[in-house]
Amino acid sequence: MTDERRFFGAIEAGGTKFVCAIGDDAGKIHAQERFPTTDPIATLSTVRSFLQGRSREIGKLAAIGVGCFGPVELDRTSERYGFIVRTPKPGWSNTDIACMLAREFQCPIGFDTDVNAAALAEHRWGAARDVKNLVYLTIGTGIGGGVVVDGTPIHGLMHPEIGHVYPRRHPLDVGFDGVCPFHGDCMEGVASGPAIFARTGASLQQLDAAHPQWEIEADYLGQLCAQLVLTVSPQRIVMGGGVMSQARLLPLIRPCISHWLGGYIDRSEILSGLDRYVVAPQLGDQAGVLGALALAMDAAAMVTSPLAA
Amino acid sequence: MTDERRFFGAIEAGGTKFVCAIGDDAGKIHAQERFPTTDPIATLSTVRSFLQGRSREIGKLAAIGVGCFGPVELDRTSERYGFIVRTPKPGWSNTDIACMLAREFQCPIGFDTDVNAAALAEHRWGAARDVKNLVYLTIGTGIGGGVVVDGTPIHGLMHPEIGHVYPRRHPLDVGFDGVCPFHGDCMEGVASGPAIFARTGASLQQLDAAHPQWEIEADYLGQLCAQLVLTVSPQRIVMGGGVMSQARLLPLIRPCISHWLGGYIDRSEILSGLDRYVVAPQLGDQAGVLGALALAMDAAAMVTSPLAA
Repeated sequence: MTDERRFFGAIEAGGTKFVCAIGDDAGKIHAQERFPTTDPIATLSTVRSFLQGRSREIGKLAAIGVGCFGPVELDRTSERYGFIVRTPKPGWSNTDIACMLAREFQCPIGFDTDVNAAALAEHRWGAARDVKNLVYLTIGTGIGGGVVVDGTPIHGLMHPEIGHVYPRRHPLDVGFDGVCPFHGDCMEGVASGPAIFARTGASLQQLDAAHPQWEIEADYLGQLCAQLVLTVSPQRIVMGGGVMSQARLLPLIRPCISHWLGGYIDRSEILSGLDRYVVAPQLGDQAGVLGALALAMDAAAMVTSPLAA
Repeated sequence: MTDERRFFGAIEAGGTKFVCAIGDDAGKIHAQERFPTTDPIATLSTVRSFLQGRSREIGKLAAIGVGCFGPVELDRTSERYGFIVRTPKPGWSNTDIACMLAREFQCPIGFDTDVNAAALAEHRWGAARDVKNLVYLTIGTGIGGGVVVDGTPIHGLMHPEIGHVYPRRHPLDVGFDGVCPFHGDCMEGVASGPAIFARTGASLQQLDAAHPQWEIEADYLGQLCAQLVLTVSPQRIVMGGGVMSQARLLPLIRPCISHWLGGYIDRSEILSGLDRYVVAPQLGDQAGVLGALALAMDAAAMVTSPLAA
């Protein structure tokens, strides 16, 4: 029997750090490096060096996957497909990622948002292995969400920007305008890590259990989950990110989801099974790079990829 | 050349009326009947008589499609698949539709919500022919929405219930609690036809252009569209239903969408192309039955259908 294992490049392209890895068909990571995100030229040069060095050892990569901070262009008919487009991150607007990698490595490139990639990883190997439709939320410096329908991340016009829906304001959350530069008090503006800090001068973990911030945060995130049940009808919601690393938070969110749905969704998953419906991630901080690996595997599996060599 | 045309049964199962039709592969309707919805036994008996009569003339139906009022069970692994489940409509809770038709007519059955069916019809033959991802909204007695992703209606946990997301209240809309029995002032509670009537004692068309109800209604529906852009990222939104039949309303909604998105979605479709992005339906009151025809065609195309003969 010959060794038919194929190797893939996987890149988690984050706004503060990049993680590069080599993985195989089984979802195993064989090599991994992480380094801070600086300017595009230096950062992408480090990415290329890592992948070139590894492919000298193991042979040609079967495909490369990129889960990228955004917003990104995902329309395959656009000449900017695979670019980071207009971003507040200095120097990174209009940065070509996917075409550069395709030219350099002559292999199929999978490219998607960081949150769609993480959603895909939790679907393939993590907390949503047993369902086809899910939402992955990350609540941290920002609020983002990836949506997987029938095993594939949805794109449409661009990609979901779930963090910017508007919640109703919590009655205890008065005199606070929110921190979103675009929307003020959208979800990201009132429930992200920076919003918590702006409101209280502290992070959630620094506030004791009786502080009203816990109730406010749970209410907003419960509203967000309820909106998603009503609009995209996922079979599971996976909630990760720095704010969610406070394990006390998730049990506070679930009753808020019930409150906002008002008994309308007549499904046992909602009425009595929220413990299994809204869950923590299982892949921890490996979700991003494993998602990139999943994108690479899917790109290799596509019979015809517009970026294939 | 032999005539290879196949014929399909199409049933628009509405809460107030049923429409039954025979259509062909080209989307042409050859016979159609409409009758009021009474109790399940009498109504479904009329459906069977229509289809039996027609299939005696044209031969065995290739498949039957049903776009159904809800909520319905769409999980193919459930023993209640193809049922109308808990509904406020007297007598109709737990009514078997799809299995009854499969038994009776020994052919594949396509079954989905009425709004998913209408979305599919507008995608195949109407206002969203040129895109793969769309939302179809109906604003009338209730507010409902169908979501099509990559040409297929999404289901997930059950199906979207878009009408029950919460808008922020309009500053002119004071002292009104909303009419939704589950949620009070959710979108359906404040922007459906009955909500307009409860607030003003009139329908929208009876109110003159200067009445604040126009502004309130446009604001709520603009919020709804903005939420959908952020959560499901459709390539088009099609807005139908009785309330939308007031042609003055759609042009009032578009600037509200821009307002609620706050310039965040950097796409020409949103920034300068809302006239083509948020549009009226093209199939009028035939969308429902044509959607049922599309469901029938898709059921026939499935290689293995759990309900196939």
